[in-house]
Amino acid sequence: MDNYDSYSIHKLTEAILANYEEEKLIIKIESRDQINSGVIREIMENLRSLIYPGFFGQKRLKRDSIEYFVGELLENLTYHLNKQITRAVLNDQNDESSAERAASRITSVFLSQVPALRGLLAADVEASHEGDPAAFSTDEIIWSYPGIYAITIYRLAHELYKLGVPRIPRMMTEFAHSHTGIDINPGATIGHHFFIDHGTGIVIGETTVIGNFVKIYQGVTLGAMSTRGGQALKGVKRHPTIEDHVTIYSGASILGGATVIGEGVVIGSNAFITKSVPEKTRVSVKDPELQFKGDSAKRSVEFNQDEFWDYMI
Amino acid sequence: MDNYDSYSIHKLTEAILANYEEEKLIIKIESRDQINSGVIREIMENLRSLIYPGFFGQKRLKRDSIEYFVGELLENLTYHLNKQITRAVLNDQNDESSAERAASRITSVFLSQVPALRGLLAADVEASHEGDPAAFSTDEIIWSYPGIYAITIYRLAHELYKLGVPRIPRMMTEFAHSHTGIDINPGATIGHHFFIDHGTGIVIGETTVIGNFVKIYQGVTLGAMSTRGGQALKGVKRHPTIEDHVTIYSGASILGGATVIGEGVVIGSNAFITKSVPEKTRVSVKDPELQFKGDSAKRSVEFNQDEFWDYMI
Amino acid sequence: MDNYDSYSIHKLTEAILANYEEEKLIIKIESRDQINSGVIREIMENLRSLIYPGFFGQKRLKRDSIEYFVGELLENLTYHLNKQITRAVLNDQNDESSAERAASRITSVFLSQVPALRGLLAADVEASHEGDPAAFSTDEIIWSYPGIYAITIYRLAHELYKLGVPRIPRMMTEFAHSHTGIDINPGATIGHHFFIDHGTGIVIGETTVIGNFVKIYQGVTLGAMSTRGGQALKGVKRHPTIEDHVTIYSGASILGGATVIGEGVVIGSNAFITKSVPEKTRVSVKDPELQFKGDSAKRSVEFNQDEFWDYMI
Repeated sequence: MDNYDSYSIHKLTEAILANYEEEKLIIKIESRDQINSGVIREIMENLRSLIYPGFFGQKRLKRDSIEYFVGELLENLTYHLNKQITRAVLNDQNDESSAERAASRITSVFLSQVPALRGLLAADVEASHEGDPAAFSTDEIIWSYPGIYAITIYRLAHELYKLGVPRIPRMMTEFAHSHTGIDINPGATIGHHFFIDHGTGIVIGETTVIGNFVKIYQGVTLGAMSTRGGQALKGVKRHPTIEDHVTIYSGASILGGATVIGEGVVIGSNAFITKSVPEKTRVSVKDPELQFKGDSAKRSVEFNQDEFWDYMI
Repeated sequence: MDNYDSYSIHKLTEAILANYEEEKLIIKIESRDQINSGVIREIMENLRSLIYPGFFGQKRLKRDSIEYFVGELLENLTYHLNKQITRAVLNDQNDESSAERAASRITSVFLSQVPALRGLLAADVEASHEGDPAAFSTDEIIWSYPGIYAITIYRLAHELYKLGVPRIPRMMTEFAHSHTGIDINPGATIGHHFFIDHGTGIVIGETTVIGNFVKIYQGVTLGAMSTRGGQALKGVKRHPTIEDHVTIYSGASILGGATVIGEGVVIGSNAFITKSVPEKTRVSVKDPELQFKGDSAKRSVEFNQDEFWDYMI
Repeated sequence: MDNYDSYSIHKLTEAILANYEEEKLIIKIESRDQINSGVIREIMENLRSLIYPGFFGQKRLKRDSIEYFVGELLENLTYHLNKQITRAVLNDQNDESSAERAASRITSVFLSQVPALRGLLAADVEASHEGDPAAFSTDEIIWSYPGIYAITIYRLAHELYKLGVPRIPRMMTEFAHSHTGIDINPGATIGHHFFIDHGTGIVIGETTVIGNFVKIYQGVTLGAMSTRGGQALKGVKRHPTIEDHVTIYSGASILGGATVIGEGVVIGSNAFITKSVPEKTRVSVKDPELQFKGDSAKRSVEFNQDEFWDYMI
C-alpha cells in the first residue's frame, strides 16, 4: 500500500467515524456481546439431529451409542442456548444474574418440549407423504423437502417465542425463509398434520391461527389487510384464522384478522379473500377471463369451471 | 454445568429415548451410512467446473494443464459418485456387491453424458443471452444467473433420475431450489435452448414435458390440477406438455396432465390455464379489471389490451 | 481404482477435451485470473460490518478501538476491491496498468460514498420499523430482515454500477437474490426510506426509477412489457417509474418503460398495470370475482370493495 493510499484511508476513516456520531440508529457500540448467528445455526442443526436422529449425521446411528448421542447433543444445546438466550435477554435489560436465571429456565422448558415436537413433526412428515404423489418415501421428505425444513424450524422457533425469548425466534425463521422461500412468523399458531408443497413465496403472518390437516401451496399469503397503521397495530390480530382440513392452492391471498376460513374449505389458485368463508365451501376465481388471439384461436378454448372442479375436488 | 443441570439432562435424555421408541417414522437407527449432503454439494460443484471449465476455479485454466484438470476432476467424481450412489441404492435393498456394481455402471454412464450435456447447456446460455437485454455477456450469465444455475443442476439430476438413482437427484434440485427459488423436479423433461428469467417462485412438476426454445418467467407454475389423490397418483402424468417456442410470462399457472400448450403460444402474465391451447395462440387475462379511486382518477386510465399486445407480441 | 476405471476415465477425458474444442461459449481458457466469488462475499460482509458497526462481529465493539476497527476494515476493503475490480476490468480489455489505475480510482470513490450510504440505509431501517407492526426493534430489522439485507447490497452494488464496474455489481445483487428471493438489478435507481416487506419474489428491473418513501410487498414485479426484442433493447428504458410515497401490495405487476405511477398512489394486490396512473389514485382489482360452492355457500359471502378500501387506506 503506497503513501497516497495510507493518507486517503486515514482521511476516510475520519469521515466514517464522524458519520458514526451522526447516524446512531445503525451502530451498536460498547453494548454487550451480541447473539452469534453462527452459533444459532449450529443450535438449529443440533436440534434437527436430535429430532430426526440418524438422518443428518455423517455416520450411521447405532443402538448401543444412542444414549450417548442424545446426552451429548443435550449438553451442547443446553450450554449454547443458555448463552445465546442470556445475550438476547440482556439486550433489553441490564441485570446479568436475572438474565442468566431466565435463560436457564427457558432452555430447560424448551428442551423438555422436544418429545412433543417430535410427535407433531412426525405427523407433518406423514401429511407431506400422503399429499404428494412425487414423494418416494418419508425419508426423502425429511432429507430434501423445503416445506418440512421450514415447518421444523418454525415449530422450534414458536416454542422460544412463547417463552418470551427476544430476537432468536425471528433469526431462526428468517434463516429458514432464506433457505426455503417460506416466511412463517414465529408468532403464528399452527396445528398438526400441516403440509406445505413447493413453498416458495409463502407468507404466514405473526397473528395467523391455523388448525389441523391444513395444506398450503407455493405463493400463498396469509396476511394483514393493511399495515398502514405500522407500529400502532402491534399486538392486534391482523392475520386470518384457518380452520381444520382447509386446502389453499397456489398464489391465493387470505387477508385480515377477522377473516375465518371454515372447516373443510378449499380455496382455488390466486383467489383474493378478505372476508370469512363458511365451512365446506369451495372458492375459486370465477371465469378466469382469458382472451385468445391467433389463427387457430377460433378452434375455441373453453374453460369450464365445473369440469375443473370435477377434477379438483 | 452444575448438578441440577446434569440431573435434568439425564432425565430429559430418558424422555427423548422413550420418545424415539414411539415415533419410529422420523428415526434412522442401525441403518447403513447415509448419503452425505456435503459430499453431494461438492460433486455438484465439481460437475459445474467440468462443464464450465475456467469459470469457477480460483486460478486461471491453462492449456498445458487442461488434460490434468479434467482427469483429476473425473477421478474425484468417479470415486464420490460411486460411493454416494451405492449408499442411495442400499437404502432400498441389501445386497452390497450388487449395489456397488449398479453404482459403478451408473457413474460411468452418467459421466459419459457430460459432453452431450455441455452442448445442451451452451444452447441454454445462448438462449439466456438472446432473451435478456440486461445481460452484458454470456460470461456474466454463467457466473451470476440463477436460471442457468437451476437448469445446469436440473440437467445433471435428470440424467441420474433416468438412470434410476434414488434420492440424490431430488437432493440436487432441492439444493438448487434453495439457492435460486426455482423448483424443477428432476423427473421433468426439458428440450434445448431453455430460458428462465429471474426465476423466483417457478415450479415445474415431475411429469412436465417441455419442448425446445421455451421461455419462462418468475412465478410460473407448471403443475398438477389437484394432488388430492396423493400417493394414488404416483406415476400418472399430472403436469402439462409445453411445445416448442412457447413463452410463459410471470405468474401464469398451467395445470393438468392432459393440458398441451401448442407450438409458438404466448401465455400472458397471471393467466390460469387448465385446458390445452392450440398452436400460435396468444392468451392473456381479459380486461385486467381494475378500479381507480381518487381525485385525479377521472382523468381516466384506460387499459387497452390490443395496444398492450402491440407492445408485447 | 482398478484398471478398467483408469481406462474408462482416460477415454472419457479425451471425449471431454474434444468437446471443449467444440463448445467454445462455455469455456474460459488461458484467460486472466477471474473474479473470485468467495472474496466478493467477504467484501460484502466487510462492507456490512463497516456500515452497521457492532452488529455482525463476534465481539462487542468498544469505543477505544473503533478507529482501529474502521481502519483495518478499510485497508482490507481497499486491497480486495482493487484486486477484484482490476480483474473485472481486465476481462473486457488488456492494458493491465490502465486497469489497475481505474480500479484504484473506483475503489477510492466508492469507499468515500460509505458515509452517504449509511445515511440512506439508516432511513431505510427507520422506514422498515415504521411500516411493520411485527418488528420489535430497529436492531431486529438490521439483524434479520431480508428486505434490509437486499436493499443494503443493492445500494452498494448500485454505486459500483454507476462507476462502470463490470460484472461485480450483478454478482452482488444475485447473491442477495439467492439469500432473500428479492431480485433488484444494480442498475435500478431507488430513493430514500425504501421499505420491502417479506420480499420473496420481488423483481425490480434494470431501468426502474423509484422515488422516496416507497413500500413494496412480496411478489411485486417492476418489469419490462416484453423482452422479445432481446439484446436489441439494451439501454432502452424498459421498466416503470414509481414516484414518491407509492405503496405496491403483494403480487402486483407494473410493466413498461413509459409507465409512471404518480405520487401517493396505492396499488392493490395482484393488480396488473401497463399504463401510467395519476397521483393519489388507489388502484385495485375490481370485484375479485369469486364463485362459491357448497352447502353453506348461500349463507353468502359478499366482498365489498369499498369496505375493503376503508380498511386499506
